[in-house]
Amino acid sequence: MLQLSQKAALMPASPIRKLVPYADAAKAKGIHVFHLNIGQPDIASPQTALDAVRGNSLQLVEYSHSAGILSFRKKLTEYYKRYDINVTTDEIIVTNGGSEGILFTFMACLNPGDEVLVTEPFYANYNGFAIYTGAVIKPIRAKIENGFALPPIEEFEKHITPKTKAILICNPNNPTGYLYSQSELEILAHTVKKHDLFLLSDEVYREFCYDGMQYCSVMHLKDIEQNVVLLDSVSKRYSACGCRVGVFITKNRDLYGAVMKFAQARLSPPTYGQIFSEAAIDAPASYFDKVLEEYTLRRDTVVKAINEMEGCFCPNPKGAFYAVARLPIDNADKFCQWLLEEFSYEGATVMLAPAAGFYSSLSVDGSDNTAIAGVNEVRISYVLNVDDLHASMKCLEQALKVYPGRVR
Amino acid sequence: MLQLSQKAALMPASPIRKLVPYADAAKAKGIHVFHLNIGQPDIASPQTALDAVRGNSLQLVEYSHSAGILSFRKKLTEYYKRYDINVTTDEIIVTNGGSEGILFTFMACLNPGDEVLVTEPFYANYNGFAIYTGAVIKPIRAKIENGFALPPIEEFEKHITPKTKAILICNPNNPTGYLYSQSELEILAHTVKKHDLFLLSDEVYREFCYDGMQYCSVMHLKDIEQNVVLLDSVSKRYSACGCRVGVFITKNRDLYGAVMKFAQARLSPPTYGQIFSEAAIDAPASYFDKVLEEYTLRRDTVVKAINEMEGCFCPNPKGAFYAVARLPIDNADKFCQWLLEEFSYEGATVMLAPAAGFYSSLSVDGSDNTAIAGVNEVRISYVLNVDDLHASMKCLEQALKVYPGRVR
Repeated sequence: MLQLSQKAALMPASPIRKLVPYADAAKAKGIHVFHLNIGQPDIASPQTALDAVRGNSLQLVEYSHSAGILSFRKKLTEYYKRYDINVTTDEIIVTNGGSEGILFTFMACLNPGDEVLVTEPFYANYNGFAIYTGAVIKPIRAKIENGFALPPIEEFEKHITPKTKAILICNPNNPTGYLYSQSELEILAHTVKKHDLFLLSDEVYREFCYDGMQYCSVMHLKDIEQNVVLLDSVSKRYSACGCRVGVFITKNRDLYGAVMKFAQARLSPPTYGQIFSEAAIDAPASYFDKVLEEYTLRRDTVVKAINEMEGCFCPNPKGAFYAVARLPIDNADKFCQWLLEEFSYEGATVMLAPAAGFYSSLSVDGSDNTAIAGVNEVRISYVLNVDDLHASMKCLEQALKVYPGRVR
Repeated sequence: MLQLSQKAALMPASPIRKLVPYADAAKAKGIHVFHLNIGQPDIASPQTALDAVRGNSLQLVEYSHSAGILSFRKKLTEYYKRYDINVTTDEIIVTNGGSEGILFTFMACLNPGDEVLVTEPFYANYNGFAIYTGAVIKPIRAKIENGFALPPIEEFEKHITPKTKAILICNPNNPTGYLYSQSELEILAHTVKKHDLFLLSDEVYREFCYDGMQYCSVMHLKDIEQNVVLLDSVSKRYSACGCRVGVFITKNRDLYGAVMKFAQARLSPPTYGQIFSEAAIDAPASYFDKVLEEYTLRRDTVVKAINEMEGCFCPNPKGAFYAVARLPIDNADKFCQWLLEEFSYEGATVMLAPAAGFYSSLSVDGSDNTAIAGVNEVRISYVLNVDDLHASMKCLEQALKVYPGRVR
């Protein structure tokens, strides 16, 4: 019999997509669905980037350099300088979205059975890329009560074994919106140095830091230059998810050389996306000022509304465009499906991402009161305009009043 | 110490790229380099495709469906119908170039230690994608004396073990330009069925079939529908290598579902490339008529010239835009480097791809007279205009007269 691989069996189906058929059914019934479930920004991309693609004069679309178009990499070095990140063009490899950067890094660093520590909840697809390599994601639980701050370093130390090869963080964080402070990163750096681990940092939400908070990159950390990998993407920054342009950066020459071999095997990243991304770096500062103002207003709308609902709690995120909220419900998977299948208010309902999908199944331990991590939490992406957010919060409030699985 | 993975060590560096520094040095000396080493077509893309990207009205660049934009997949079903290939939109997954299709297929079908039979010489990057999975490429040698026809089926049968999971072909072939006949494919189908293997077929050069020869797809084969995977790309077809748009097709629902999970983990293929590719399908037939006429002329120019050089032999390829030639030289790696480092004729030299890079290191066996497979062979890509091809053949002829490693 034709058999598929063990990794095909292990590869998880997207947890959010399980709800898609229910959303489609709701729409078919004429119900408006507010999509708070996806990380797809709705704000227009920088005009200069859109124009660059429209104005391109290519007569054919050649492979670019496997590390990305040189003029784009040069421009990227200017971009990073704005954040006091000093890199050269030969420390950068442009990837097919941030996803490919994670895949290449995992492939180059991890053997089957190796372990990567990740603060939990975490971006679910990290699991998928770990499966490619046969490596294992070890979650270190961050708590909603602390606003999802970095767990005590002892929690990391406790889980470090000879198989531990790396610590992976996402900063600002998806799904929690937490922004790591410089002192938190320095604590991590100390542990990384002590155990000679890689520190992989997914910083694709860099532009979305609120309340004047300072973003600190792993590239700013002293004495661990050889350990650090910066993973990046233009997807969120410029509302350009479909460009499929990400960036891998390291000053570790051996690692760079290894990732370059993986990059060469797939030939090149996409040319049009790179044209877009290079031009986007010239977007005026006013572009981000406006974006930041808008997202701040949205965050405030959502967080305030949820915290005013009885039995709900939502820490105030300082970055990204997500919030994780605890709701007075039995099970967020059931609740999110019920919202789509059985509920509507003024002709509309909301689609949320159950947080369980962002918690590893390995995370259940005796010290925790919930049987399943994140069982009563949801991730809310505030990628709708303020009016729609007001309407969806009203909708959520009504839903919580009548949901049969409501708990006190 | 920070250690990289075993797979990073195994991953081969691109064999062609080893020559790039020598080409750069030649250019720095003012020598013109005729690039016959790459698979980057030089012919303009269809105007309708270029215009579609220039005329796009996106305000932001969203993720597409993980399987690709639906309207593009619909258009692809029309495209394939022209070749008597009947597929539906839900049998298609659009990939980040043909490369990702190979990677997904290998990941979904192969466990570590599993074996894939491939006719040799073969596209070198198949090795790289096998390394991701820990699977092994087993080469079945095709011979230049037979024009690189399908090796006797007994050669395949001899190498089939319980670990054999698939046979992979490239048709028309890169690097040989060989076009498999219907009867050759039927012989393969019989073996595939008998041993319940996957038959993976990379058909990215479909449009380039010469002398009125009929292209036969694995999708045309009877009774092995569940075993077949068609791997495709727009790169060569529309001179669109930088679009990074490939296609994975299967009628096997289990395999489709597995590959879909890998596709979801990386979110989506590139949007602009899909806009280009969808429009390209509307290119008039006259576009390919002209392209085919041009490539036929180029092939004839190269093959005739080489076969007229003393001690040289080049089978006449029926497809793709490559030819593999045997030259009266000691070692093609050395010769290709010498061409760039020490030779010029009328201010120019040629860059060729040594064929050894297309032969697996595992291919050496006692039955063969050459110590290293393909040692005296080169791949020539005829992606230059006819005048440049005449000049480069003249250059090659002169080079062979004075090369110190010439053998009789």
